[in-house]
Formats: sequence, C-alpha cells, structure tokens
Amino acid sequence: MKLKIRDMDVATGGPLVAILNKDDAQKLDLHVMDRIKIKKGKKTETVVVDIAASRKSVKPNYIGLFEEVIDSLKLKNNQIVDISIARKPLSLEFIRKKMDGKKLNKKEIDQIVWDIVNNKLSSIELTYFVAACYTNAMSTEETIILTKSIAYHGDTLKLDKYPIIDKHSIGGLAGNRTTLILVPIIAAAGFIMPKTSSRSITSPSGTADTMEVLAKVSFSLKEIKKIVLKTNGCMVWGGALNLAPADDKIIMVERPLGIDAESQLLASIMAKKHSVSSTHILIDIPVGNHAKVRNKTEALKLKKDFETIGKRLKKHIKVIITDGTKPIGKGIGPALEARDVLWVLTRDKRRPLDLENKCIKMAAEIFKMLKIKDGEKKTLDLLNSGKAYKKMAEIIKAQNGKSIKPEKIKIGKFIFEVKSKKKGIIRNIKNSIVTKTARVAGAPVNKGAGIYLHKDVGNKVKKGEKLFTVYAESKQKLNYAKDILKEESPFVVK
Amino acid sequence: MKLKIRDMDVATGGPLVAILNKDDAQKLDLHVMDRIKIKKGKKTETVVVDIAASRKSVKPNYIGLFEEVIDSLKLKNNQIVDISIARKPLSLEFIRKKMDGKKLNKKEIDQIVWDIVNNKLSSIELTYFVAACYTNAMSTEETIILTKSIAYHGDTLKLDKYPIIDKHSIGGLAGNRTTLILVPIIAAAGFIMPKTSSRSITSPSGTADTMEVLAKVSFSLKEIKKIVLKTNGCMVWGGALNLAPADDKIIMVERPLGIDAESQLLASIMAKKHSVSSTHILIDIPVGNHAKVRNKTEALKLKKDFETIGKRLKKHIKVIITDGTKPIGKGIGPALEARDVLWVLTRDKRRPLDLENKCIKMAAEIFKMLKIKDGEKKTLDLLNSGKAYKKMAEIIKAQNGKSIKPEKIKIGKFIFEVKSKKKGIIRNIKNSIVTKTARVAGAPVNKGAGIYLHKDVGNKVKKGEKLFTVYAESKQKLNYAKDILKEESPFVVK
Repeated sequence: MKLKIRDMDVATGGPLVAILNKDDAQKLDLHVMDRIKIKKGKKTETVVVDIAASRKSVKPNYIGLFEEVIDSLKLKNNQIVDISIARKPLSLEFIRKKMDGKKLNKKEIDQIVWDIVNNKLSSIELTYFVAACYTNAMSTEETIILTKSIAYHGDTLKLDKYPIIDKHSIGGLAGNRTTLILVPIIAAAGFIMPKTSSRSITSPSGTADTMEVLAKVSFSLKEIKKIVLKTNGCMVWGGALNLAPADDKIIMVERPLGIDAESQLLASIMAKKHSVSSTHILIDIPVGNHAKVRNKTEALKLKKDFETIGKRLKKHIKVIITDGTKPIGKGIGPALEARDVLWVLTRDKRRPLDLENKCIKMAAEIFKMLKIKDGEKKTLDLLNSGKAYKKMAEIIKAQNGKSIKPEKIKIGKFIFEVKSKKKGIIRNIKNSIVTKTARVAGAPVNKGAGIYLHKDVGNKVKKGEKLFTVYAESKQKLNYAKDILKEESPFVVK
Repeated sequence: MKLKIRDMDVATGGPLVAILNKDDAQKLDLHVMDRIKIKKGKKTETVVVDIAASRKSVKPNYIGLFEEVIDSLKLKNNQIVDISIARKPLSLEFIRKKMDGKKLNKKEIDQIVWDIVNNKLSSIELTYFVAACYTNAMSTEETIILTKSIAYHGDTLKLDKYPIIDKHSIGGLAGNRTTLILVPIIAAAGFIMPKTSSRSITSPSGTADTMEVLAKVSFSLKEIKKIVLKTNGCMVWGGALNLAPADDKIIMVERPLGIDAESQLLASIMAKKHSVSSTHILIDIPVGNHAKVRNKTEALKLKKDFETIGKRLKKHIKVIITDGTKPIGKGIGPALEARDVLWVLTRDKRRPLDLENKCIKMAAEIFKMLKIKDGEKKTLDLLNSGKAYKKMAEIIKAQNGKSIKPEKIKIGKFIFEVKSKKKGIIRNIKNSIVTKTARVAGAPVNKGAGIYLHKDVGNKVKKGEKLFTVYAESKQKLNYAKDILKEESPFVVK
C-alpha cells in the first residue's frame, strides 16, 4: 500500500511509531500495536502501528510518522512510501512467557534486548517486560544472560590498562555519596577508576546528579578516555553514553512507578561495569528497613548473585554489606551532598564522619583486592595529605568544572527548619521519609533542594533543638515538602 | 505559567497528555509523566506531562495538546492557558503497592478505577496495574471491590423487570458461540435476556464479532432497552456502551500481550452483569490444556470465586465446568461461526452437534435456575418448532440486520485445505493452534477468515481425507496461516 507521509512533528522519545487512518488500517486489518514495514528505496524499517483516533490528524492515504522514523529512513513530508504488514516482534511471546513465571533462554533474552535497543517495542510492551521481571524474579542464569546481552548491545570503553577499578553502591539510601570521595582516593593512589554513574530514579540524588553540581558529567567515550588517561579517574553520567542502551530504555519505564527489579538491577550494574572493562569491582549493599535491600537474607542473596555473575564475567568482585538503616552523610540532595563531599576532601570540621568512615572502609577493601596492605592507613594519608582533594580538583577541571570550593555551592533559598518537640535520644532517621521530603522539595532536578540533617542517630537532643532543615528553590515545592512532614517526621526521638 | 496552545492534531485514544518544551519543563522542574493543571476560565484539568524530545514540535512558551484535552476544556489553537504543577495521582502509590504483592483496600481500588475512567493515568502506569494484578492475583475481597467499583464508575441498563437472565462463557476456546443460540431460546421462552458481549482479544472471534456478521451490534443503552422490550433479548457489543469504561481501558492495554488477569476477568464479567441488572447468571468455564482455564483445580477456584462474588452482589449464580479440550463447533472465525449458529437454529443437517448439545445443556441449567422442569425437553421443543429461529430473526431485525440465511454469509475466498497424512483416529484438536492459525488468517477483523473443522475428536480418518480448511480474505494472510501450519498441525492423528 502506498501512502503519503505526514510529518507529525513529534518525537516519541523511543519506539518507532506510525499513525494510520482508520480506513487504511482496516484495509490491511491493522490494529493498534500491530507492526508494518515501511519501505523507502532500499531501506526498510519495521514500526509500531497506531491508529488515528481523531477526526482529522491523519487523513486516508496518509501515514503520520514520528521523528524517530523520519530520521531513521531519512524521509520528508509528502513523500510516498510503501507499507506492508509485518509480524509482531518475537519478543512479545517471550515477555508473555516471563509474565507467566517461566524462564527465558539466551535466544529469547537476546531477542528482547535487541528489540528494546532497536526501538521495536511500544512503551506498553516494554512495561510488561519490566513488570514481569519485577514480580517474577529472573534466575541467576537468566540474569547473567541479560547482563551479557545488555553489554553486548552497546558500546564499550577500552583503556588497555590493568587493573581497572570500579565500585557500585546499591541505591535507595539517601546521601551515601561515596563515589565522589573514593574515585579521587583511588586515582590519587595511582590506579585507574573510570566511574560511570546514573542519575536518580527514586532517591533525592544520584551520583551523576551530585557530580553535576561540580562539573560537567556528559561526555563521549572518546572524551572520557582522554580524561581518565590524564587524571586516572572520572565521574561521569553513564546515561549519556551508549554503554547499555537497553538498560537506559528500561529505566525510562521504571521511572513512573519507581520500581527496580532485582535481575534488572544486577544486569544493569554488571553490564555497565562490563562495558567499561572493569577488572576489580567493589559492591556496597546497604541494608535497612527503608533501604532498597531490606534485610540481611536479601543482602546475602544479592551478594551471592553478584559474586556468581562476577565470576562468570571473569571479574574480581568484593561485596560488602553495610548499614542502610539511616541516611549516610548530612546533606541530602545534589548540592548539599556535593558540599559534604568537598568538606570530607578538604578536611573541614563540618564534614560528615559517617560518610568519611564508610569511604575509608571501602577504599581499604579496594586496596585489599589489589593486594595492598594497610589500606585504611593509606587512605587516611591520601586524605590528610590533601592528595585526594588535589586529585578531585584535577578531575573536576578535566570535566570542565569550576566549583571546587564548598562555600561556592548554591543551596536552595527557601528554607524550613524542623526542631525537636521533646528532649531525648534520636533512635531512628527514616530514610524513606527523608527521601520523599527531599524529592518533593525538588531534588534532584532542583540541585539546591534537599534536606540537611543536623543530628545523627544516637545523638541526644534538647526540646527545641534543630533536627533538620529543608531547602527548596521555590516556595511551592517547600510547601509540598511541609505537607509531607505534617503526615510523618523522619526523626524518631525517644 | 502562561503558555500558548499548539493543537497537536492527534488523539492519544485515552490518557490526557500535554507536551511541554524542554526549557519550560525545566523552569517548573517537570519530568515526563509528571502532572500539571491546565486552567481555562473556571475549568481545570489535570494532565500527564510529556516533554518534546524533538528539535521542533513544541517551541518555548507553547504547550502541545492532544485532542482529548482540547475537547475536555474546549480549547482552540493559539489560545493562552495557565498551567501549574499538580501532584501525581494517588493511584500510582497503590499500583506500586500491588506490584509489591500487597492487598489494596476499597479507597485505593476506587481511586485507581476513578483515575482510569478519567484518563488520569498514562498507558505505562495503567500497564503496571494490569501487570501487577496478573502476577499478584487479587484476593476475592479485592476482586469484589474492583467489580463494584468498575460497575459504579459507569452507566447502567435499567429494565424494571424480573428475572433478567444472563450468561458468560470464559473465553479462550475457539468457536464456542453459545450466546447466539441461547439468547433466542431463552427469549423465545418468554424471559428477558439482554446480552452484552465483547469483541475478541485473543481468540479468533468474540460473540460481538460473530453477531456483527448478522446484524449491527453497536447501540446506545436507550436503543438496547427498546430492542429488549420488543424482543426479550439482544446480542450487542458491550464496548460501545459506557457500562464499565474502566474495564474497556484495561482491555486496551491487555491486548498487546493478550493477557487477562483472573481478578480482572472476574471483575470485568461481573461488573458488566451488574450494570445490566442481571438477576440470574449462568457461567460456563471450559477447561482444557489450551483453554484459558487449564485444569479442574483452577476451574473450581474460579467457580467458587464467581459464586462468592455473585452472592455478595445478591445474584443467582450457577457455574458449570465444561469440556475445553477442543474447539466447540465446526466453524472458527466470525462468519464461519455465524453460519454454524444459523445451521443449529434452522436444524440444518450440517449443524455442529457439539455446539448444539452444549447449548441444550446450558439452556436447561438456566431453566432450572428459574424453577422450570424438563429444561432439556423444553429447549429441544423451542429449537425443533422453529420458535428459537423465529426469535433470532426477530432480534436480528431489531438490531438492523439482514443476513438471516446461512448460505448468504460470505466466507473468505482464499482457501487452503489440509488433509490427513495418515489413517487413524483424531486424538486431539489443539485449540491454541486453531486459534493462532485463524487469527493469522485474518480473524476476527476479516469476518470471512478462519478455519472450518471437517472432523472432530474421536473421528476416524483415512489417509488423504480432509481435516480442515483455512479461509482468508487476502492471499498474504493465507500465506501467513500456512507458515504457522508448517510449524505444527492442530490435528493429532494416531
């Protein structure tokens, strides 16, 4: 069937979609989410069908194309293309299989990943895959296949160096900005640590969001290679690269509900490590009632899964289980966290000691993997001598940054202070409420939004003493945060 | 923030969506799938945010609106509207809760249903709800709440009559067109049976698809009332009504993967029965390896659930478990099934006896519920006397139909006959392959497409004897069907 192109002037942001008029669709018996092949010269592209539900939009004999398709086939408005019926992607059967709780094999997972990367699935179909893996957890074997498949269907960073250090902290814990302290320490010690990080999905800030307060985080692989060869390290946003495009698309549909399936979590992390050719990887699993990993049993299972997958990918893996019962650090939100990080590196007396101690422990674990003795002492030397801070300044400069002074970081102007209603000891700081409040206040999009915790668990407080401050960049968002706090306070004082 | 409307000239077919330019979105910290309030005069509407991913589409200071929003607020191109940040729908938290396997209460389910009916959820968000209910089955209590909620958020057919008869056969079985025979029988016996049916999701034809071969099936509630008061019965498409709009939207996202969660199945069926004020309902659960219900245990659970929900809704319910191991009837596909139905009603010698016997049994069960003795004899009398056929002709006429003669029904012109490769006994006819082949051949959209089964399970066949014929309305689709049959035949001859 020959149809005339109507450029819809809209991008879907992913799936390849074409809109047909109802009459034309009926002639070919096409339904919403069926597939057609569009032919232009020698090039063809299979796309998802949508049918004009409206009175005008796409007239008979026309085909409405979104920009992804226009670009892919290099088409122009009013050109004629030839369309024919195509079969639905094979992946749909495999996704359905997973929905039914069955296991997928290599061929099936590869097909799904290929279809995701090549924009062959509609967002509804991709959502079913994510939902299926969330509720019917993938086996270790499936996860290994998924990991390799995601890495295979993407670009790789090759540095021709050994060893290449990497780390990952499982998200879900407010603060916990260890990467920004660890990378300068390890790089200052002379080791290569090309760290790619994500932006936040459910937390008040991701490592990339926080680093962005200090420097640029979007670079090409070529630029990253240059930065790392110059400074030994980098802290960049993985999403701007094409390391694991399938994963990036999966995260897009995870976002609305803030879900994160274990198999996808594992595959997502390990695929990216694989893509940057890491050889030694430290994994940090914070465990706590309100963290992503709720209890030790879950953590031990995850630890085992990481070790198994690491082994299969021929990598040195060390997994540590850490305290995830409360936020780590005092600042929560991009700018507040960046300031904490710089305070640790500049040995400022306001630095959060829980964050510092965790980083020292983690650095020591990395040194141990590298057969270096007295890791804790070495780490403290690198911090106290200013070598780690100097390295941080070097990396920030290499990443086109400026703000290397903590006092120059802009914090939200709209402020709300919460004081203790009674005298007592702080028994708990609820991570989930800290997270919710910081996000509602605007983090991570408003860099200066978030929460600053004046007190830590175990501290004594007097009645009327400051517990925490909420920062926002607009009055409206501050009010939303206040609403959240009316329902429940993150601090338990007894 | 004031923005100028750009009419996108496209309908989403459901969710209320607005597209913002990247710059404007950043000013208000809006992300994809956030919500904004659009204000025009005194009317406001909360809509889902999408962000222009493209180079042009929506310029700064503009807001791209899809037709649903344009219509809802009665807006025009280039008008100015005022937008502000709105909170995300509460349902998202409840959907997440269900994803995590927890139970939902009345308030939560009502909120989800309200948000679905009012187009407040994006299709990704709705998909998560459907997926969650599929993998984490709802409890009976949740299902009852969902049923009532779906019925409450829709229109109702009120006839002021008692009793009002209804029936439902669980789908998934090819053929099985009992409604089109039962309604004329019951209506001919003087009882009211206002039957609304669905179109097919996963099968070669739904009752509405098959009835559409004979008459119109889309009517307003007012028209249906008129038809029923005149003829005692009707066989109309429920989807054209607003009986259970939430369910219609749920079915839309179920379609791409062809899934159907048990709780949604129950709620979907019972809500519609509730909406047409049925008092006596017969439920038919076909059980078979390839039917929707796979085994007796599942069927008994479903039976109990139907009875429990029926009781709570104060309805007389009778559930029968029937043979679902093979297709019922000879014709599979809208036109072929309609011909079977008319052959049964006209007592033609070509009529499928398995379908006829099932209908006699079902009619007898309905008469038993109505305290009428000798139901089987009464049913046979109504069939043999021609009263049921006369009633069918009356209803078809009332529904603006013409084709009441079986020989006038158009069957697909492209034909492929499959003969037995050996002598033996037919041990099995695989429902799943019959379904797949008929659908690939074009059913249900191509009314004349489908399969005609010349032989039934238990029949003896000689080598070279005809087993079945595939009908299609285009050569291409016939070829697709042949491809399917190359992989596996629906007939097991041993």
